[in-house]
Amino acid sequence: MPKDAITTRAADYNQWYLDIVREADLAEVAEVVRGCIVVKATGWALWELMQRELDDRIKATGHSNVQFPLLVPKSFIMKEADHVEGFAPEVAEVTRAGGEELTEPYVIRPTSETIIGHFYSRWIRSYRDLPLLYNQWCNVMRWEMRTRPFLRTAEFWWQEGHTAHASEADAEEETLRILYDVYADFAEQVMAVPVIRGLKTENEKFPGALRSYCIEAMMQDGRALQAGTSHNLGQNFAKAFEITYTDQQNTIQHCWTTSWGVSTRLIGALIMTHSDDEGLVLPPRLAPIQVVVVPIYKNDAERTKVMAVVEQLTAAWRGLLRFKLDDRDNLSPGYKFNEWELKGVPLRVEIGPKDVEKGSVALARRDIPGREGKRFVPQAGLTELLVELLAEMQTALFQRALAFREERSARVSTYEELRQQVERGFAWAYWDGSNADEKRIQEETRATIRCIPLDQPNEAGRCVYSGRETSRMVVFARAY
Amino acid sequence: MPKDAITTRAADYNQWYLDIVREADLAEVAEVVRGCIVVKATGWALWELMQRELDDRIKATGHSNVQFPLLVPKSFIMKEADHVEGFAPEVAEVTRAGGEELTEPYVIRPTSETIIGHFYSRWIRSYRDLPLLYNQWCNVMRWEMRTRPFLRTAEFWWQEGHTAHASEADAEEETLRILYDVYADFAEQVMAVPVIRGLKTENEKFPGALRSYCIEAMMQDGRALQAGTSHNLGQNFAKAFEITYTDQQNTIQHCWTTSWGVSTRLIGALIMTHSDDEGLVLPPRLAPIQVVVVPIYKNDAERTKVMAVVEQLTAAWRGLLRFKLDDRDNLSPGYKFNEWELKGVPLRVEIGPKDVEKGSVALARRDIPGREGKRFVPQAGLTELLVELLAEMQTALFQRALAFREERSARVSTYEELRQQVERGFAWAYWDGSNADEKRIQEETRATIRCIPLDQPNEAGRCVYSGRETSRMVVFARAY
Repeated sequence: MPKDAITTRAADYNQWYLDIVREADLAEVAEVVRGCIVVKATGWALWELMQRELDDRIKATGHSNVQFPLLVPKSFIMKEADHVEGFAPEVAEVTRAGGEELTEPYVIRPTSETIIGHFYSRWIRSYRDLPLLYNQWCNVMRWEMRTRPFLRTAEFWWQEGHTAHASEADAEEETLRILYDVYADFAEQVMAVPVIRGLKTENEKFPGALRSYCIEAMMQDGRALQAGTSHNLGQNFAKAFEITYTDQQNTIQHCWTTSWGVSTRLIGALIMTHSDDEGLVLPPRLAPIQVVVVPIYKNDAERTKVMAVVEQLTAAWRGLLRFKLDDRDNLSPGYKFNEWELKGVPLRVEIGPKDVEKGSVALARRDIPGREGKRFVPQAGLTELLVELLAEMQTALFQRALAFREERSARVSTYEELRQQVERGFAWAYWDGSNADEKRIQEETRATIRCIPLDQPNEAGRCVYSGRETSRMVVFARAY
Repeated sequence: MPKDAITTRAADYNQWYLDIVREADLAEVAEVVRGCIVVKATGWALWELMQRELDDRIKATGHSNVQFPLLVPKSFIMKEADHVEGFAPEVAEVTRAGGEELTEPYVIRPTSETIIGHFYSRWIRSYRDLPLLYNQWCNVMRWEMRTRPFLRTAEFWWQEGHTAHASEADAEEETLRILYDVYADFAEQVMAVPVIRGLKTENEKFPGALRSYCIEAMMQDGRALQAGTSHNLGQNFAKAFEITYTDQQNTIQHCWTTSWGVSTRLIGALIMTHSDDEGLVLPPRLAPIQVVVVPIYKNDAERTKVMAVVEQLTAAWRGLLRFKLDDRDNLSPGYKFNEWELKGVPLRVEIGPKDVEKGSVALARRDIPGREGKRFVPQAGLTELLVELLAEMQTALFQRALAFREERSARVSTYEELRQQVERGFAWAYWDGSNADEKRIQEETRATIRCIPLDQPNEAGRCVYSGRETSRMVVFARAY
């Protein structure tokens, strides 16, 4: 684990990202399967922790998990006009199975609105069956041309929630509940990633949606990353798949449906929010290992002495902390320090013979690199201190990311200011332009409207492009 | 939820199974995707509980979870001779993606030995990299012609462990550790399903394995169900995929690999071990709802009185019991009783105005149907009683299944006895026949050698078919 395994952000930001993915045991590009990755042990452990936290929130808001088929009849994808346009070009098709050509091909689900719509139309009969609140954790596949581990891959892993309601208001309430209580809460409290809660413009909404909401985060290069989306699908899919119910007046009505998802892309967001030139930095709530203990000794006598104290100290940690004792004999302490820094372990405890004598340990904090983050503390009260420091670090990472985003955000009032601001971060601007204006700006600046934030200022101003007065403010940025 | 929603076992065992799958909200056949199912809310909740228990054991034995691609280059499947023969005829192929024909098709993984072998050959360099102990939870696909929910479906969900070792002994130890400490322990302690731990014959082993071990359970029709397999793959895949390492003498050696899996088939095993003519019966450790509370009242005044006591009683249950309060106002208590019996909830607590006065509740136990399973107990000490009864029921279900299996098992010493015994259950027989003999018996009796049990009697006898003396005993049965 050479110290220079990671390219610095300043030297090459993209290579820095790829180096961390590789060296921190997160993922590997599966060259033999185009656009796909192998998610390695640390990467999948991270995803499992994310899943647990998200799943708790999804269940707490009344949803049950189910599992629909991987394959979707190709004709289903064609039933909703916008959906076809969005997904048909990038599906993988199964045309042969069990040694025979299929009469109708299947596609591997790029998302499951269509196959789920088919079943909902069979399951829902009466208003009493509503709302129907289901979610599934699964793999999906989109044949992307330009891929990058976690951020954009042909196969990825996600949860997709699909719900059906009796009214537009109910569907809208669901869409926003997921955005706020599940996604934004998870991103900020657990990932320590500050997000803007917003509405997508018509250009950027999900193919087939009435309205798409999103949470948007800022990465360390100032670009935006869409970290989760929640769609009010209106009656579009209900009409394409005949999802109807009989209301209390005995009239047949179309349902209002929603869908919402977050994916392994969040691992990319996590890396690019917190990590540094030494490697991965993980918020304690998502760290598969929160504390690593490195014993230091030169001979068997020292080893015995040190290990006895290590055992005493760690006895109380089980169930309280996720920790690892790195007692590998063939590696130097310095090598181990580097390795665990690179893999993003929040706290490192070092104990050598001198520490045993003094009743102390050395303690290093991953988010404060170098000497500043290291100090000697008494063994007495260590457990409580570790728990406290993990909580403190969770907050500190969020605050640091928030300060970074604020520093890289600015209100702009002219198009020239907008051009300059999207070079470094988020440009907040009044907006009253058309879809065509938005596309022109994208061509000229490579920036898009990431969202119309749901928290709007209570004032009006002039549109950054048309100059017309408007009370709507949007966020422009270049995006992943 | 009519009382006669479930066909009796005596009338039609197969229909009984399908009725439970449907009525207990476990799964639905997805007619639009051949051979596939939708796993519904109760079914998936069951699977999640199974996963949690298995995953804990898999991690406790030193394995990490990872995730390999869904797609496998078709040429990979062809690399191991026996593996081709076993799996090539039943794969689904992706021949077109992103709007273009692929030059080399992919198959959807029927199992992942080949793609994982490819990566292991890149990852493993030295003896220091061994053992490599990985597992993945995922979906797989085999284009089966005759399907049945959970028991045999085109897409199913499973875990597949894949490990690499330096020696045959290490691989064998791993294979047996999984069989005993993970699979058999889980089946008996958690599923309450007694299993025989055994070795597969050459005819029945996994395509490409050196030795296949299995756990075999008996269903209520006397047929066997293979509930999990653990394979010592020898050096077959290591040679096909060049998985090598440099040993301590600096010589290049082929690794010894293993693979092992259990799947959503276990849900089928669970149904057919414990359930009865009233519906699903679940062992408490896997019941998504362990206790259901049904309040009984005729008017608002009674409702208020009853619900106050319900709240008091259930306040202590959170975190201790998985429970549900069924306070639906539009359904009668009788309807609710039927529904929860059908869905396999282990314990039902009923509280009406009279119970409030008397300080009692009515308590019904799912594994003892009718009046016998119902009694009145004091509200004081109810929580402790419920916890105790759940543990008791867990043991009782295992004991009942074990007694059933023993009653349906017999030693046979002649071929005629064997023929008769496999009509009703397991036939234990001395065996020294050939592979061809085994196949002939299968043609004549529809029974196969389920396994050579690892616990063998310390004696010898005459082979049931050839009459030759042997010390090897096997179990014949018809199987799912």
